[in-house]
Amino acid sequence: MSPRGRRPGGVDTRQAIVEAARVDFAEQGYDGTSLRGIARRAEVDPALVHHYFGGKPQLFAAVMDIPADPAALISAVVEGPRDQVGEALVRTFLAVWDSDDGRQRFQALMRAAVTHDEATRMLREFLTREVFGRVVRSLAADGEQSADLELRAGLAASHMVGLAMMRYIVEFPAVVDADHDELAALVGPAIQRYLAP
Amino acid sequence: MSPRGRRPGGVDTRQAIVEAARVDFAEQGYDGTSLRGIARRAEVDPALVHHYFGGKPQLFAAVMDIPADPAALISAVVEGPRDQVGEALVRTFLAVWDSDDGRQRFQALMRAAVTHDEATRMLREFLTREVFGRVVRSLAADGEQSADLELRAGLAASHMVGLAMMRYIVEFPAVVDADHDELAALVGPAIQRYLAP
Repeated sequence: MSPRGRRPGGVDTRQAIVEAARVDFAEQGYDGTSLRGIARRAEVDPALVHHYFGGKPQLFAAVMDIPADPAALISAVVEGPRDQVGEALVRTFLAVWDSDDGRQRFQALMRAAVTHDEATRMLREFLTREVFGRVVRSLAADGEQSADLELRAGLAASHMVGLAMMRYIVEFPAVVDADHDELAALVGPAIQRYLAP
Repeated sequence: MSPRGRRPGGVDTRQAIVEAARVDFAEQGYDGTSLRGIARRAEVDPALVHHYFGGKPQLFAAVMDIPADPAALISAVVEGPRDQVGEALVRTFLAVWDSDDGRQRFQALMRAAVTHDEATRMLREFLTREVFGRVVRSLAADGEQSADLELRAGLAASHMVGLAMMRYIVEFPAVVDADHDELAALVGPAIQRYLAP
């Protein structure tokens, strides 16, 4: 038996958690949202939130319909060989978004980001904490001592976001036609220069 | 006397031309639109269109509320010293968009680009012809023989667009706080590498 007033597990529960998370993220931003608060709003046991999603970044990815867990991908890349971080990030990024489905999700994400202030704030806080934060912590842990590490992580992300804008939204032909090897060879060094020169 | 059925010069005329251009660009794209067709729709003499706007890129900038003539700016930069083209492009780009007004216009432009297919098409055709086209022609004229020149111009533009996304829309703090000198010093070499390695 589930606790009184709480939903049992299943598809509806998962969906109820995502819906509750959508409201909390929008109202309180990424940083201000807790899994406990989401469980309360969804009327489920907090353990179920962990069970279905693992943690806040994965739940956010589900709410924003991001096709992978960006935090896990970023961690894998920045913990890999230091001299290949640029190319690896480009390849990982393309692997996530480069499908019909991924393209549509990127378009939806950008549409939300440019038309809704709450979506913009969620995305900013999520990127700051789960993406830039991880990159910067990883580089700093390697003894990198640079005041502009956050700026350089932000510029690397700028380039990736812009690449996706041109490839999936503006659809500039030369950028659409390029394959992963070409993009990794050309964009990889630019990202490398920012993150690990 | 103005010709029968045609408007005399003045504020209304200028506005009528912009409105007619907005319709033609949306219906026929940037490439498919002619100044003559716009004049016909606005019921003005074609000479007035040239008089008020100079040409198609300037009229497009007025329709899209772009705060400067991108074609002229790009031409000026790519005709300048070859070894400073990256930094010059970054500084020019920031000079155009880096004001409260410019920021709002960039937001409106991106909003249109991600929510309206016609706006996306207009922007793609405009960028291809007036921005990339100029960059690629200028580099090719200097004897640059590279099959991937268009791709590299598209990647340079990707980085600039992404920089503006992070600075004006996502508002990632480190990217917002950076001044023009910092951004020129960091992003300039990435653009330089694409356009004139």
